[in-house]
Amino acid sequence: MKRTHNCGELTKKNLGQKVILQGWVKKTRKLGGLNFIDLRDRYGVTQLIIEDANLLNLSLLKPEFVIEVSGEVIQRKNSNPEMFTGEIEVKVSKIEIINSAELTPFEIKDNLESNEDTKMTFRYLDLRREELQKNFILRSKVNKIIRDYYCENDFIEVETPIFGKSTPEGARDFLVPSRTNHHKFYALPQSPQLYKQLLMIAGFDRYFQIAKCFRDEDLRIDRQPEFTQLDMEMSFATPEDIQNNIEGLLTKIIWETKKIKLKTPLPRITYAEAISKYGIDKPDLRFDLQIHDCNNIFSKTEINLFQNINSDSVRGIKVDHLIGKKEMEYLSETANQNKLPNLPFLKFNNGEWSGSLAKNLSDNEKKNLIEIFKIKSDCTLLIAKGEYNLVSQALGAIRNHVAKIYELFDKNEINLLWVIDFPLFEFSEEENRFVAAHHPFTQPKEESISDFDVNKKEALAAAYDIVMNGFEIGGGSQRITNEEIQKRMFKAVEMTPESVEKNFGWFINAYKFGAPYHSGCALGIDRILMILAQTNSIRDVIAFPKNSNGIDPMTNAPDVVSPNQLDELKLKLSK
Amino acid sequence: MKRTHNCGELTKKNLGQKVILQGWVKKTRKLGGLNFIDLRDRYGVTQLIIEDANLLNLSLLKPEFVIEVSGEVIQRKNSNPEMFTGEIEVKVSKIEIINSAELTPFEIKDNLESNEDTKMTFRYLDLRREELQKNFILRSKVNKIIRDYYCENDFIEVETPIFGKSTPEGARDFLVPSRTNHHKFYALPQSPQLYKQLLMIAGFDRYFQIAKCFRDEDLRIDRQPEFTQLDMEMSFATPEDIQNNIEGLLTKIIWETKKIKLKTPLPRITYAEAISKYGIDKPDLRFDLQIHDCNNIFSKTEINLFQNINSDSVRGIKVDHLIGKKEMEYLSETANQNKLPNLPFLKFNNGEWSGSLAKNLSDNEKKNLIEIFKIKSDCTLLIAKGEYNLVSQALGAIRNHVAKIYELFDKNEINLLWVIDFPLFEFSEEENRFVAAHHPFTQPKEESISDFDVNKKEALAAAYDIVMNGFEIGGGSQRITNEEIQKRMFKAVEMTPESVEKNFGWFINAYKFGAPYHSGCALGIDRILMILAQTNSIRDVIAFPKNSNGIDPMTNAPDVVSPNQLDELKLKLSK
Repeated sequence: MKRTHNCGELTKKNLGQKVILQGWVKKTRKLGGLNFIDLRDRYGVTQLIIEDANLLNLSLLKPEFVIEVSGEVIQRKNSNPEMFTGEIEVKVSKIEIINSAELTPFEIKDNLESNEDTKMTFRYLDLRREELQKNFILRSKVNKIIRDYYCENDFIEVETPIFGKSTPEGARDFLVPSRTNHHKFYALPQSPQLYKQLLMIAGFDRYFQIAKCFRDEDLRIDRQPEFTQLDMEMSFATPEDIQNNIEGLLTKIIWETKKIKLKTPLPRITYAEAISKYGIDKPDLRFDLQIHDCNNIFSKTEINLFQNINSDSVRGIKVDHLIGKKEMEYLSETANQNKLPNLPFLKFNNGEWSGSLAKNLSDNEKKNLIEIFKIKSDCTLLIAKGEYNLVSQALGAIRNHVAKIYELFDKNEINLLWVIDFPLFEFSEEENRFVAAHHPFTQPKEESISDFDVNKKEALAAAYDIVMNGFEIGGGSQRITNEEIQKRMFKAVEMTPESVEKNFGWFINAYKFGAPYHSGCALGIDRILMILAQTNSIRDVIAFPKNSNGIDPMTNAPDVVSPNQLDELKLKLSK
Repeated sequence: MKRTHNCGELTKKNLGQKVILQGWVKKTRKLGGLNFIDLRDRYGVTQLIIEDANLLNLSLLKPEFVIEVSGEVIQRKNSNPEMFTGEIEVKVSKIEIINSAELTPFEIKDNLESNEDTKMTFRYLDLRREELQKNFILRSKVNKIIRDYYCENDFIEVETPIFGKSTPEGARDFLVPSRTNHHKFYALPQSPQLYKQLLMIAGFDRYFQIAKCFRDEDLRIDRQPEFTQLDMEMSFATPEDIQNNIEGLLTKIIWETKKIKLKTPLPRITYAEAISKYGIDKPDLRFDLQIHDCNNIFSKTEINLFQNINSDSVRGIKVDHLIGKKEMEYLSETANQNKLPNLPFLKFNNGEWSGSLAKNLSDNEKKNLIEIFKIKSDCTLLIAKGEYNLVSQALGAIRNHVAKIYELFDKNEINLLWVIDFPLFEFSEEENRFVAAHHPFTQPKEESISDFDVNKKEALAAAYDIVMNGFEIGGGSQRITNEEIQKRMFKAVEMTPESVEKNFGWFINAYKFGAPYHSGCALGIDRILMILAQTNSIRDVIAFPKNSNGIDPMTNAPDVVSPNQLDELKLKLSK
């Protein structure tokens, strides 16, 4: 290469060396008759000093010009300890413009408030920012750690097809019309699930892939039509084997990117316990703030709200603050968004009780509240009533909100846990039937095998999620490898034998020819990167993302296509 | 894991150990009242011996059953030196059936003649073959070597989008209808070309990715609608820098997979030289068999065919065999397929000349032929006449065919070379205009910059291909980074400013904001794997391939979709 060094590596060790650098003009300035240029590339910034005014008409140089300089590394008069190259500068003997630059539509600078669509239109300029570059270097590093880990552990990386078959169950597929098979469509994979199970039947034993997946779901902020997951599967492996494997991986990732040592084995809590204590199946355990059952406390209450509760639950959390009016309004809004019409509360201030529930609160109830919530100082109790799951979910959301308001956690902490023993089914109000909570190839837990298709509500799955700082970053299960259990499962989700045959016949047939038991897991790479990079936007970890309408303002994709293209596909646009 | 070992690792060192193995029954046999089972998994085969007839009714066990056994490693009476585990066997104390297996539709065995569609329908069974498993282990290894190499060299792996924009120029795009943006379509990338160039403008400096690419081309045997390429790009890099980089990679791949040391730098020949000597731009240099110009020899000939040749060329190759009738028929067929109506020949047998051209061959011509073709012993000369490129191409194909017939090369040899100085344009008869030979972002060679848009036929590109054993396994170029040159290029391929703006405006605009010069390359992973695995079928290196109609007989993709799916996309099928 023509350059001898990049812009981030010269130090005192290089003093006296003749160097050639290439990069972008970050800024130029004049000081005491001398000209200085900060030259930037991906690796850093190096200060250039130009003593000879005849080298180039420096007024030509604007920010973002690409230049090449030759010169000598000399000691800086005033060193800058914040820069790696801060001890030196390059005394330029030759300077050449490689390419000029127009004024950029926004400054290349972190934390700049700017129109989001403008930034996306000029994504290649936004990507020049140090913060974004760091994110993608991090992403590349994490991918490397993952692949090293799996290769070291005898896994085979297999590329599964992007052109697959559309199946019912699950999210909506993206379709690709086939030109050579008129009126037929490929479907883009929502995950390589079926292929990886077939690889186990094929005897590949251990498979992994960093795979592109696609779901045509309704768009939201920070949901992208394409996403990336680590996908893995192991033969002759139980859920515990998989959990150990994933823990090994995450330990490595977090050590190598954050220098944080995870304590393993990670905590495992059941789905039921997660809902009971934290109201949510992906609890953030960087803070405690547990939910407590209060039905017993209020069994003989004078408080109208808590009388005649029948099958309802009364549950609450304690906040170690006297919640102000504005904050209480925020929290009530969160309650409303979670279908909880109101959020009753009690304040305990200097031994005195106040708040919406205080009026008819008995001495015995006060005593029990102090005991159950372990009240020792001023605090607020948020106590809600309603159907168990609804109240739990609302309090789970409120719990997260409270933690944010009062900064109850260290944002540099990484907290991981497994949630296990998930329900095998969930009831779909829309379809008025039980559907597979995970997918219909999930093995029921040992204790549910005999009756999962009868006691659907209670049936548990050999399925597990891994949760990081309150986000589900992945999950998996043991798969059904017994033909009879698979048949019962399809029947349980009310698929007719004809529908099973038509959609999954090719797949379940494979289990007739000698299948090992197997389990696997998938991790959402985009989400993990967001947490590691401490960003709230998925776009900060995806090089060329779509906006919340599924559009890339840079390329203007998706776009209209020519009538000829549609003709070839034998398609027409309909109204 | 429950198993203590896999089926490919037990040796004398393990004698006396209690082990648990899991795997597939390869075969069972009875010998001297004892029962033997060969147990198979991905890692190998281990022999099991069952002395206790009461352990299991062994007649139950059929090939491909999945079983688990506990037992002790003992010495084999008759060791098998061809097996890694051949010195030992496992004396079984406990045996359990994990899963049964029906009779497979074909035997799990390499080199088995079987219906191709049946094999693809039961791909998971075909994938159990040792040969295929080896190919995918090799593929995984090659991917690992590539990524290690680029990470070690400071490249950033960036995932570019699968959902892009359809553009004219190049092959036909696969389209994905957008549900949220009615009547608009994403296009699947034919390569990440434009994105990687933008990453250079974004200052990523060094980029790589193992990327899925898609082209909706007419199907042929061994052409897949999706394929995988290593894609890389470097800023401040010339074609030579890229060639050095790729040589470093290929040296590593070939050493680590074949234990063959490549001699670098690899040979570089120009496109013109390749056509002149080998008739083809991807010559197989494992054998010599050069083409020679014969116009001078026949300038005053009595041979009718070679009289009045005007601008035609007379060119020939020497085959060091007296080609038989049958072989000559094959070669004539190859000539015909390459638009050469006939293939005149001369045989030199014991100093005597014969063949279709021998009749009027003068003594002087004989002398010159002996000199130019360096004839020393019996041989056949194949001499053709016609337009230079046509004759060259036909002789190039014949050259390859001859090498196959007479096995002129060692099939274990790996031969690599660069072909450089490609034409910038090629003339499209169909469109009656010059089109970009590579793509319209390819930088003209230094000597063509001043007049490439005038002398299109002579214009050379800063483009290069890498050729392995006669296959083009990749190529790249320096990219245009100067706005003026880019404009002239678009004009040269007759794109109107309006069309440029509409299709590429977003892209060329990026070059206004400070672009480094940059070059890159892409390598076809599938093709490289075919060569390394010494297979002629691309399906042997793709886990779940499509057949030559673009169909996966296993899943039956592509398939019809529901009217509801089409409604949501606002599409109708047309006739």
